[in-house]
Amino acid sequence: MKLHGKNIIANKLSNLGDTGFYASNPSNGVQLETEFFNAHPSEVMLAFEKADEAFESFQDVARNRRADFLEKIGIEIVALGEPLVKRAMEETGLPEARIIGERGRTVGQLNLFAAVVRSGDFLEISIDTAQSDRTPIPKPDIRLIQIPIGPVAIFGASNFPLAFSVAGGDTASALAAGCTVVVKGHPAHPGTSELVGMAIKKAAEETGMPEGVFSLLQGNGVEVGQQMVKNPYTKAVAFTGSFHGGKALFDLAAAREEPIPCFAEMGSINPVFLLPERLNENSESIANQYVDSINLGVGQFCTNPGIVFGLKSKTMNQFIESASIKLSTTAGGTMLHKGIKTNYDQAVEQATSQEHIQLIASGSGEGESVGVARLLRTNGASFIHNKNLQKEMFGPASIIVECENEEQLQMAARSLQGNLTATLQATENDLMQFKSLVKILERKVGRILVNGFPTGVEVCHSMVHGGPYPATTDSRFTSVGASAIKRFLRPICYQNFPQSALKEELKDQSNLSLWKKIDGKLHNQNI
Amino acid sequence: MKLHGKNIIANKLSNLGDTGFYASNPSNGVQLETEFFNAHPSEVMLAFEKADEAFESFQDVARNRRADFLEKIGIEIVALGEPLVKRAMEETGLPEARIIGERGRTVGQLNLFAAVVRSGDFLEISIDTAQSDRTPIPKPDIRLIQIPIGPVAIFGASNFPLAFSVAGGDTASALAAGCTVVVKGHPAHPGTSELVGMAIKKAAEETGMPEGVFSLLQGNGVEVGQQMVKNPYTKAVAFTGSFHGGKALFDLAAAREEPIPCFAEMGSINPVFLLPERLNENSESIANQYVDSINLGVGQFCTNPGIVFGLKSKTMNQFIESASIKLSTTAGGTMLHKGIKTNYDQAVEQATSQEHIQLIASGSGEGESVGVARLLRTNGASFIHNKNLQKEMFGPASIIVECENEEQLQMAARSLQGNLTATLQATENDLMQFKSLVKILERKVGRILVNGFPTGVEVCHSMVHGGPYPATTDSRFTSVGASAIKRFLRPICYQNFPQSALKEELKDQSNLSLWKKIDGKLHNQNI
Repeated sequence: MKLHGKNIIANKLSNLGDTGFYASNPSNGVQLETEFFNAHPSEVMLAFEKADEAFESFQDVARNRRADFLEKIGIEIVALGEPLVKRAMEETGLPEARIIGERGRTVGQLNLFAAVVRSGDFLEISIDTAQSDRTPIPKPDIRLIQIPIGPVAIFGASNFPLAFSVAGGDTASALAAGCTVVVKGHPAHPGTSELVGMAIKKAAEETGMPEGVFSLLQGNGVEVGQQMVKNPYTKAVAFTGSFHGGKALFDLAAAREEPIPCFAEMGSINPVFLLPERLNENSESIANQYVDSINLGVGQFCTNPGIVFGLKSKTMNQFIESASIKLSTTAGGTMLHKGIKTNYDQAVEQATSQEHIQLIASGSGEGESVGVARLLRTNGASFIHNKNLQKEMFGPASIIVECENEEQLQMAARSLQGNLTATLQATENDLMQFKSLVKILERKVGRILVNGFPTGVEVCHSMVHGGPYPATTDSRFTSVGASAIKRFLRPICYQNFPQSALKEELKDQSNLSLWKKIDGKLHNQNI
Repeated sequence: MKLHGKNIIANKLSNLGDTGFYASNPSNGVQLETEFFNAHPSEVMLAFEKADEAFESFQDVARNRRADFLEKIGIEIVALGEPLVKRAMEETGLPEARIIGERGRTVGQLNLFAAVVRSGDFLEISIDTAQSDRTPIPKPDIRLIQIPIGPVAIFGASNFPLAFSVAGGDTASALAAGCTVVVKGHPAHPGTSELVGMAIKKAAEETGMPEGVFSLLQGNGVEVGQQMVKNPYTKAVAFTGSFHGGKALFDLAAAREEPIPCFAEMGSINPVFLLPERLNENSESIANQYVDSINLGVGQFCTNPGIVFGLKSKTMNQFIESASIKLSTTAGGTMLHKGIKTNYDQAVEQATSQEHIQLIASGSGEGESVGVARLLRTNGASFIHNKNLQKEMFGPASIIVECENEEQLQMAARSLQGNLTATLQATENDLMQFKSLVKILERKVGRILVNGFPTGVEVCHSMVHGGPYPATTDSRFTSVGASAIKRFLRPICYQNFPQSALKEELKDQSNLSLWKKIDGKLHNQNI
């Protein structure tokens, strides 16, 4: 499978740009084969013109066929076989098992959204029936349905080269909503992006989707992404990555002549609270799980446990000691690219340069892309007064915060910025005693876990992978799970339409047995 | 009922500001009694501190009691009796029947949201059950529910002194969601605002709601509103009014250190399409309804039909003649305040100063606040090429656009900016023939009507009063109807929580028979 390095624009290959770039292997720094072409501004424009054109006909595609398309993408990705796995490993330094697992998750996401599309629940149909004899004025017949928002600009993330990249959750949910999609491939894995992009192209062709339903643009600078967000045809933006990158896109999207929603998931420090009864019973095993969670994927998850709070006590000391010992024995791993490793080291350095914070343990390992685990320690008062300790260190680092008492623990929780997750290591008694802590955390995060660690985001109907700013730019939505489709839908209603002119789903006798509200009550039968 | 002119902050009256203002009667320009105090920055801050404090306890209030509170507000508003009606008439120039009708709508909205709160459907509960034996890793138990977003800053609108003011749709839906509310009263009707604010205060006290659940701030400049949007405790903004005002708030909200959602409904020109078969059969009666709709409430509705498209033909000429004759016989009415009348006249003047546009009919009437109906006429090509013709003339004015042919009509539709509504005067045959026009309009608006006029927004479950920018700043939401509650909610999920620590609504045996998704399927029974 020879790579071509070109942009994929509405089923055609295109290389009008006059600059290019190569990927490199973070494990050894060696440049990988194939030059990739930075998309030219005219190519960005063409991709969106085609996406806009395709948007109208994509809506005429029956939901079943849209679902077939999503499933076919999954099939084509698996059919890429060994070359995809190999290239993804070379470009990311991630091990084979992880890439294969992530491929499974990617296909699973596509299939979940196919099921969502088939079920039609996301249409949220609501019908108010007419009352022609109502006084003083008759009540009209009004029928609401969710429709897709328009072409979506999606940014591949570096830390999930498959599951949050070209055919990842954003693409799957946007296509499921009925939106057309233009993806900017992440420059760290352009070959992986191309292979997956070609699989989508093939799936689109074979299931008869309109040209322009999908395009993939390559680029190793910020220009292509900026052009995508500014493009007048773009109606929404989805991004997973750094705060710096996400906030820049959000600002661009808000400053457009026509502002558009920008869903940026910008990471998180994912506070973990060790409550006393639970810690007493399990300090050793929690310490072990904690260190494993820190190191998972060399700490390159948005849900990495970056901060742990506990109450000053003998057990807390034991926990800190166990975690330190365990972490000291861990070996560093290859990070996704040199830039991430540099940023990681700088972030750790910045944290350790703060007052009242100590580096208490380090893993081992060396190399220009090798991230080594670090454990830091501070006290509750320092955490509360120093916002710098809330900066994400993207990589295998975590800070342990010892609080004087319950009150300080609550104050620390209150001082938290928005996060994706919070975790409680707690018994039922702990939860009862720390009820008000849970209430504080409800205002801070999108997901609260009991007795686990936040790494590992289940792709299901009830997942919320989101949370208050700065974890994301819009806490009302999730980027993982079935509800992610909602980001790309908007409601429209039809008033006094004759049956013949209504969409099939809105007709009295639709034969589709969709769930709908009729005069405010849920039914799945015809009117 | 003597007015006090003070701000209502968490059930207490407050007047720390050192400037004040009076309302005046737009019918005769006479200043009305009572000086109102501009809220001082410390009062703005206090209102939000109290709103933030109350937010946590308001969430502990059972849904039934929250619904009681909403219903009680309606009861207290009605109990204000004649003095409210009189003051509202004096402050707005609107006739008694309209004020009484609008009061009914306001109470209806409060009751609708009470019913929404009781039903609990808005919680959108979704439960994924655990699979402890799943490989390679067990599936966790995950439970999703919608929670309120936080304190909301709401701006009273001038054109609905009751239904979109202090206890209007925004306040009702925000309280229903479980948010606390700080309202900025519109300076054109501060007495009406105060009376309604006192009714809410009384309802809050009598139903035992936390202090700070509601505050009313008065102000006749932009400062109070700006402070409200910038306040760190504010988590969302709701506004109905001009494009200028809404866009300024949106920009402020996006530029905050923590950006927050701003739902601004900023008006619309509400295109109407006269399709040929329908027009042939009914040109006279459509012309009459059209002119009535233009004049309704002196054109001061966001859904006023500001532009009408038709195909050049003999019937179209007849329609234009009938509408001109009818409109010429209409008498102007008192507008909401002098400023609106001045803006209206300027907008009409600006439109008539454009090329290829003629003023073809005018109503009669004079007075510094009297708005007189105007009918303008242009051709399809001019409309398509001149975006200035898409500027809203807030008041009783409308432009008729004659298109050469179907193709030009479609191009005109494509050139439209976002609007709240589009209307088709059409037979079933027309709708069949103009299918692609309907598809174009679906991308442009939030509501499409057949054979009616867009004025009159039914408050029901299926209403969408929203639409693409610049009609609103967020097309994914409606500001009228049951779905308006969604603006103020965000999802959260709980992972592996013991039953005892779950919210009542999320327990396996909740005894609440709420609708919920269990592993993706809707049920209203316990697990």
